[in-house]
Amino acid sequence: MTEVLARLEAKGLKLACAESLTGGLLASTIVDIPGASRVFLGGVVAYDNAIKTGLLGVSGQALAMGGAVDAAVAVAMADGIRESFSRSTGLSMQSIIGLSTTGVAGPEIQDGKPAGTVFIAISGLGDSQAIQLALRGGRQEIRRSTVQAVIEQLADRL
Amino acid sequence: MTEVLARLEAKGLKLACAESLTGGLLASTIVDIPGASRVFLGGVVAYDNAIKTGLLGVSGQALAMGGAVDAAVAVAMADGIRESFSRSTGLSMQSIIGLSTTGVAGPEIQDGKPAGTVFIAISGLGDSQAIQLALRGGRQEIRRSTVQAVIEQLADRL
Repeated sequence: MTEVLARLEAKGLKLACAESLTGGLLASTIVDIPGASRVFLGGVVAYDNAIKTGLLGVSGQALAMGGAVDAAVAVAMADGIRESFSRSTGLSMQSIIGLSTTGVAGPEIQDGKPAGTVFIAISGLGDSQAIQLALRGGRQEIRRSTVQAVIEQLADRL
Repeated sequence: MTEVLARLEAKGLKLACAESLTGGLLASTIVDIPGASRVFLGGVVAYDNAIKTGLLGVSGQALAMGGAVDAAVAVAMADGIRESFSRSTGLSMQSIIGLSTTGVAGPEIQDGKPAGTVFIAISGLGDSQAIQLALRGGRQEIRRSTVQAVIEQLADRL
């Protein structure tokens, strides 16, 4: 993560997170790095679907169609945090990268999807892409693996 | 935290976090508890001051007066997350408890305040109160101690 933050800073890019599944773990992993504040703006933990809609602009239709654990919702969350933070900071959309996580932590099945079904998305650097993960383990393990996957994907894209 | 969530659920209360210092660690500690979604709405990680202003309604004047690490800013953040989430969810302000954290994680001094200077606030249950903490340790230790203090304060108030 230290190297990812250094590369973002060198490119003049800022980072923002929209987290459902990981519930703040992605943001807190980023701020553990000294100097994170030079790159990291913050995020929204949109655990309740009304927060996904109200703060991130995810459409009720998208949530009704595939449920919250869905590639289209992950992309809408990552796009939404960029738009929201661009408005708040006055920075251009192009200078903010949005990361998002949504998935089933378990132990229960959610919307017909088993625990470990996860979508992550990166918005910025020219487009918005979602990736599906199928993870094993308990709630904490699924969350930690998701955070690791987001950071690796971001590193690959930079 | 499990017992705190059970007490909130029994009282029909919901929880929301506005985090600066802890950067998502408070939210992620809450969502580690199975069933957290019955009580926890989510939060805003307002690491950059523009996010405190734009998403939580903290006044630029308050930030200019005492800096971000300040009792008045902690209270404004906890009040602000309740207002924002009440708008997004349609829930009454009275049914949402807002928690906030702001402080200096270090290693550098910030706005003349040493590492470990922390303010936490609880908004709801009839009023809004900030508490100042003076913590020791590295970045992670200061954050973990802050999360623990917020949960203990909330437990005492319920």
